[in-house]
Formats: sequence, structure tokens, C-alpha cells
Amino acid sequence: MDTIAESFNLRRVGIVRSKIKDPFLTAGDSDIKMQGEIDAVRAEIRESYQMISEIIINEDLTDILDGIEGYSHLVVLYWAHKVPEKSRLLTRVHPIGSKDTPIKGIFSTCSPARPNPVLMSAVKLCKREKNVLRVSGLDAVDGSSVIDIKPYVKGFYPQEEVYIPEWMQKLCQEMNQ
Amino acid sequence: MDTIAESFNLRRVGIVRSKIKDPFLTAGDSDIKMQGEIDAVRAEIRESYQMISEIIINEDLTDILDGIEGYSHLVVLYWAHKVPEKSRLLTRVHPIGSKDTPIKGIFSTCSPARPNPVLMSAVKLCKREKNVLRVSGLDAVDGSSVIDIKPYVKGFYPQEEVYIPEWMQKLCQEMNQ
Repeated sequence: MDTIAESFNLRRVGIVRSKIKDPFLTAGDSDIKMQGEIDAVRAEIRESYQMISEIIINEDLTDILDGIEGYSHLVVLYWAHKVPEKSRLLTRVHPIGSKDTPIKGIFSTCSPARPNPVLMSAVKLCKREKNVLRVSGLDAVDGSSVIDIKPYVKGFYPQEEVYIPEWMQKLCQEMNQ
Repeated sequence: MDTIAESFNLRRVGIVRSKIKDPFLTAGDSDIKMQGEIDAVRAEIRESYQMISEIIINEDLTDILDGIEGYSHLVVLYWAHKVPEKSRLLTRVHPIGSKDTPIKGIFSTCSPARPNPVLMSAVKLCKREKNVLRVSGLDAVDGSSVIDIKPYVKGFYPQEEVYIPEWMQKLCQEMNQ
């Protein structure tokens, strides 16, 4: 068997400029926590779906965007830089930090605290200008480092019936997703 | 403005066991290349959609999967370990290494050679047994390091009309996607 690398290095390829200045969820030693009153945060999250953000790709990488205008939607991977290093050791949390929802393994949740806090957002591409993409629906906090951008192609995602657990259904309904 | 970190460290949280022993596309100094005859590779890729793979999560992280059985589908992030370090400097390639397709910026493509070779696959969850997930549709090569697993929730992806460029439409038709 080959020797398996235990760790890998990511480099920042761009930065997010957004009106979202603080994460909706913060991570501590033993769980994640919603910032502020749940209804206010939900309203903010819903608002963020329509919000325009900018993705500024490093200028020396401008070429890497060639042809991206042909897509209506993209998938953005970015680093959750507000997650403290030690929160990466968590394995179970209350989804969206709500004590009303049973504790779950992090891979069953969208917790920003994860062993590798690479978050993902499917966004609508509004405009490209040189190394800058204007997008809507990006839930990244201002200053987040962009790790990768991939085209959103429907055919790469499940075409058959999909189900999710009841607690996630409930959260989605509350967020209008 | 805060100081912005330039690089980030990922750790392996698990490993993929798959019948796919070599990548369909390999990366060189100036482009990516399909391995073998295009029709044979296409057939292999189509076959891989149904193939069962195993994701073996590090045993000390078993808890992180709690509740994952509630989902029919997952999104797996994994590291493309067969991409040579210097191929991470590429910015433009011929999609799927085909000279018939015009050269494009890497963020417009699914090239495995990317500045951060974190690849993504939406898979069907067939079974969980302790720290092992049996999934179908994972296109990762045997021995790939798993970086993250996220639940697949339809509502997180575009609900409105989506378009992709013609060249990608053509590639998808050829691959039956």
C-alpha cells in the first residue's frame, strides 16, 4: 500500500467581499452557537440568499476564470476562517446550535466547525469583470478565503429521489429552503 | 483590515476504497490528459456512476457520522492525490483533456488539476456500518483521502433555471449526465 499523506496544504486563491461581517454560527469547545435571537438570525440568513457578494480572485490567476460567464451558477468552496482551531476537534454538535434539535455527528450537519472547515455555497453568477465575480446567495463572511470554484452542473447531482432526516426538513422549512 | 492567512492545513479524516485504481484524467505541466481511448474512458466513467465504493472514516472520528443514515445522498470532498504538485499552477486546460474542446479557465471545468485539488462528488449512501460508508457514484480513485462529508440537501442548490455553456452540455451528453 502507498504511504498515505496525513495532511494537505490549501492556498488562498481569492477573497470574499460581503455585507455579512460576522458568522451566523460560532464554534466553541463543545458545541456551536447561533449568534443572537433565533428569529433575527433566521431573517438574516433568508436575506443573505438574495445578497450580492464579490469574489475577488488573485490577479495573477485571472485566466482561471476564462469561460465562467457561460454558467448561470457556481459552487464556491471557502475557508471558514472564524472557526477556532480547537473547534476542528468537535465530532458532534446541536444542528444550528439549537438545543431543540438532537445532537448529531458533524458530517450529518452543515456546522461550520468541522475537521476541515471548508464550506460550500451554490451561488448565482451575476457578472464577471476581469478577476471579480459578482454573485448572489453566497453565505460566506466578509474576508473569507476562496479555495476553489467549480461550475454548477445539474447532471452531477442526484436525479433520483432524495430524502433527508426529519430534523433537517424542519430546519429547512424554518429557513424557507 | 485583518491579516489574511495565505494557506490552510487540511487533515485526512478517512480514505476511499474503490475499484477505480487510476484517475481517468492525469495532469501534466501544460494540460490534462485522458488516460486511454476516449470511448473506453467514457464507458469506464459511465460505469463508475453505479459502482460501490467504501469510505472508511478514521476510527477515532466514528461519532462524526451519527445521524448520517437519515440521508439518501451525501457530498464527499476528497483530495486528488494523483495530481502532481506543479500541476496546481495550471490556470487553463482543455476540458477532459480533449483538444476538440476549446481551452478554458480551470474554474470553468472539472479538471482534477486545480490550485487546490479538492474534488467533490455527490453520492448515494447505501449503508453505514460503524465508521464505514458504502456509497455509489463516488468517482474518487482508490486511496484518496477524504477531507469532508456534507449532507446533500436539495434546497441548498439552485431551484431556478440553470444554464451551462454549450461545450459542457456536449460533454455531459457524451457522458450521459
